[in-house]
Parts: sequence; structure tokens; C-alpha cells
Amino acid sequence: MSFDLQRYLKARKALIDRELDRLLPPQNRYPEKIHQAVRYSIFAGGKRLRPILLLAGYQTFKDDFRRCLPFACALEMLHTYSLIHDDLPAMDDDDFRRGSPTSHKVFGESIAILAGDALQAEAFALLATAGFESGFPAKTVLKVIADLAQASGLSGMITGQALDMETQGKKYTEKDLEFIHRHKTSALIRASIVMGARLAGAREKQIQALSGFGERVGLAFQVADDILDLKGGKAFGKPRGSDKRKRKATYTDLFGLKKAEQRSRELVAEALKFIEDFSDRARPLREIAKFLIERTY
Amino acid sequence: MSFDLQRYLKARKALIDRELDRLLPPQNRYPEKIHQAVRYSIFAGGKRLRPILLLAGYQTFKDDFRRCLPFACALEMLHTYSLIHDDLPAMDDDDFRRGSPTSHKVFGESIAILAGDALQAEAFALLATAGFESGFPAKTVLKVIADLAQASGLSGMITGQALDMETQGKKYTEKDLEFIHRHKTSALIRASIVMGARLAGAREKQIQALSGFGERVGLAFQVADDILDLKGGKAFGKPRGSDKRKRKATYTDLFGLKKAEQRSRELVAEALKFIEDFSDRARPLREIAKFLIERTY
Repeated sequence: MSFDLQRYLKARKALIDRELDRLLPPQNRYPEKIHQAVRYSIFAGGKRLRPILLLAGYQTFKDDFRRCLPFACALEMLHTYSLIHDDLPAMDDDDFRRGSPTSHKVFGESIAILAGDALQAEAFALLATAGFESGFPAKTVLKVIADLAQASGLSGMITGQALDMETQGKKYTEKDLEFIHRHKTSALIRASIVMGARLAGAREKQIQALSGFGERVGLAFQVADDILDLKGGKAFGKPRGSDKRKRKATYTDLFGLKKAEQRSRELVAEALKFIEDFSDRARPLREIAKFLIERTY
Repeated sequence: MSFDLQRYLKARKALIDRELDRLLPPQNRYPEKIHQAVRYSIFAGGKRLRPILLLAGYQTFKDDFRRCLPFACALEMLHTYSLIHDDLPAMDDDDFRRGSPTSHKVFGESIAILAGDALQAEAFALLATAGFESGFPAKTVLKVIADLAQASGLSGMITGQALDMETQGKKYTEKDLEFIHRHKTSALIRASIVMGARLAGAREKQIQALSGFGERVGLAFQVADDILDLKGGKAFGKPRGSDKRKRKATYTDLFGLKKAEQRSRELVAEALKFIEDFSDRARPLREIAKFLIERTY
């Protein structure tokens, strides 16, 4: 059966963009600046990978994936908040992302901080309210909220980002790097897939398999990002070698390009192994996993 | 019946502090700095007003208030995150809070931003997990999560803070000031009481009354804060007139001290009117409301 991944991604992205537009307050709402800032970063050209993974996780078990769109959008809000804060002068100090000026360059630092803060709150507000309106069991929705909150806080993204900042310009170990990748990037990607499967009522054993899949895919994604930073490329939207100039902890810095390419292939193979018993319904997940390393060629 | 408010507040604060200590990861957890930063700000001498209000809201209907302690702690985490971000150089640029150096002065700006971000995520993680462990109905917990998220995001705290930043040093109207007070301060105070009442299974009409009470108390609290900023006082922990120097929108600036004192008394009277039919179980709420303006004398 043929499967056109690019077409699939494009169609999903269009659905998610439309839903985000529907869910976010208009940019002329008083006070205007913060509402503009929130929309600016949400619609700054993201690939919508995490919401797409949530939908693909759901579709591995059930068809009516549109029910999950608000949950998927909450993930994108949370991811966008993390990008806005990552780009701040006190953090990575990036002036551009995906080729456009970053939030603090356009709206100033205080509004950028607040836009990030708002998007985190709105993500949880959306999960809690969608929990009512979508008809999913309240207990399942609570678990999904816990999944996202734990992937974002001290057990996830934040500690990864904190160690990323601390190791910048300093000596770091393989253990540090592994911690950064696992928490900064992999936790949220893993949560995306798990949340989708949970909403579809997947059994615990299936959720565990997808959790393992998601973790490896998340790690592969970050190694691929390190490779892309070194190799550059138009799609990347950031100047080539920006991590290197900041002396960030990266897989390519610690082990070199060749080993990084090998590692990303290994991780994807490990990921696929976790879901080898799944039916063809998991095809989008499999294709996305393979695509993550193809994009580095 | 006699009621010793100071003793009540002290006992509640001790309970909440102990629970926060139990809930937060140890400060020597790897990576250490972010965990230290989180604990530093949580234990920087807060009055625990919001968690105390949640417990008092619950006790207006039911006795076994210890069941609510994790929910109360989530409120304090959320409030503490907002203080850490408010103090940042790009925001209010405060070096001290309650007499101690602010988070970014101790840990640097990047860790301070991340500590705030983490506390927001941990607040929601705690609500979702406490939702399971405490035995409250999952639907009630979802509503409580929505209460907090909406009070913190674009319908609440963030837009108030955004307008506060935008009006700084500029001309502002009474409408702007009202919006700032209602969103920046009152939304979370109101949510605290409502969340407590909701967990106790209060009826919709009772929740509406407490919502009106909480809103007025929140507004009175902010006007009192404006008065204290002008009058100073040891308990305030910030240099006197700090809002004035920053040319912030305050009630005292727009209407003068005398009218501000009158307004805070009016607001407390309005608040009390909302709950005049409530039994003596609402006494802590009433006493706290009155205390908010007494502290300005």
C-alpha cells in the first residue's frame, strides 16, 4: 500500500493550523500586544511534529482522530512556549528562528517572556476544557494532563534545558549529553505519542511500547538536529554551526559527524523494533521515524 | 466565638510549608542548580495567602481540608513562578523580594526563567496527579485545573501583567488600571477560593457567591498593595515607592492615598456582602478579607 508521507504531513499540518487559529483569541483583543505575540510565534512556520505524532498515536488504535485536535493543539502551544523562552537573550540569544525574527526581537523581552508563560497556561487550560467537551473519560484526560505536565517540568524538558544552559562553554560528559537529549527533546515527543494512544484507549502494554518508540524517536530527532546544525541547510532556518559557536553540548561535538549519523540510524531502528508487532495502522509513526534521519542527508 | 487570625494563618502556613517540602524534589537532585532555584523561591518567606484561601474555601463546606493540601501547594507553585518572572530584569527588574535577593540575582537569569517555567508545569502536574490520589471525582479535578489555568493565562494573570508592562511610564486610564488589577492579582485569588469550594462539592450558586467575594478581595488586596508601596513598612520587603519610581499604574497614583484607602474598604465591604448568608464556617474567609486592609494602617 502506498503512503505519501509529505502529503500526509501537509494535510495534518493544515488541520492543526486551522484548529489553532480557531482556538486562540484574536490578535486585536485588548491588551493587543500579548495576543499578537502569542499568534506570531504559533504561526511562525512550525512543522507541527508533536501534534502530528499525537494524532498518529491515536490513529494507531482508532479512526476518529479529529476528536483529538484540541489535545494536539495544546502540545503545539506548549512546544511554542519552550521555543520562545529558549530564544531569549538570557538563554540561547537567537535573533532568528525558521528564518523569521524571534519573539523578543519583534515584541521586546518582557512580552516574549509573558507570551511563553501564557502559552504554557493556555495549553493546560485547553486540555482541561477539551477534556469536558470531547467526551473522553475524565480520568483519561487527567492522565493525559499529567503526561504533558511531567514531560514539561522538572522530570522533563526544563531540567534538560537547565543542564543545556549550564554545560554551555564547559566540559561535559556523555551522561550530561544523554540527560539533555532525553529531557530537553525526547520527553515531549514521547509524551505526544503516549497521549494520543491513551486517548484512544490503548492498553498499558501498548502504551509502554509506544513510550519506548517515542523515546528513541525523540533522541534520534535531537541527534539529527545536531547533525543539521553542523551541515546546515535551508530548511533549518538558523545560521549553520550556531550550536558550535555557543559551545553547546551536542552529539556531533562529542562524537563527530560520522558517529552521530550512525547513532541516529541505530535509534530509529530501536524505535521501530518497539512497535514491530503493531499493525499497518502504525505506518505513519514508522514513516515519520524514518523521515527524521532522512532529512539529514 | 473567638478567632485568632494570626494563629490560624501561622498554623496553615506551617502545614503548607511542610507539604511543599514533601512534594518538591530535593535540591541535590541532578542537575542541581535548577532544583536549588525552585526551592529557593518557594521557601523565600511567602505568606501562603492563596493556598490558605483554597483551604478556607474548602472548609466553608467540609472539615477534612488536609485532602486539599496538594491542590493548595499547586497554587503556591504557580504564584511563585509568577513572582520569579515578575522580578526578572526584562520585567520589574527587582533585586530583592521580601528582603532576600531575587532568583536571577542568585542563580542567573536563565535558571530563573527556567525555575519559573518549571513551577508552572509542576503546579499542573501536581493537580493532575493529586487528582488521582486524593479520591476527588475526576470531573471536579478537571474543573479545578481549568480554574487555575484560566486564571493564569490570557484570561487572567498574563494579560494583566502584560498591560502592567505596557502602561509603565505611560499615560493610562482607569479602565487600564481596573483591567490590570482584575487580571494580574484578582484572578488567581478568586480562583483559589473557587477551587477550594469546588473540591468541597459546593453548589453552583455558592461557588458564584465565593467567586464574587474572591474577586473583590483580590482587588482590595492589590489596592492595599499600592497603598503599602507608598507608605512602606518593614513587612513589605521592597524599597518604599518602588512602583512610583517605575511609574507603574497604581490606584494611589491615579486617585491618591485617601481615595485608595476608601476604595479598599469599599471592596472588602462588597466582598463580605457576597457571603453574608454563609454560616460561621466562612469566618476565616471573612477575617482574612478584613485583615487585608488592616495591614495597610
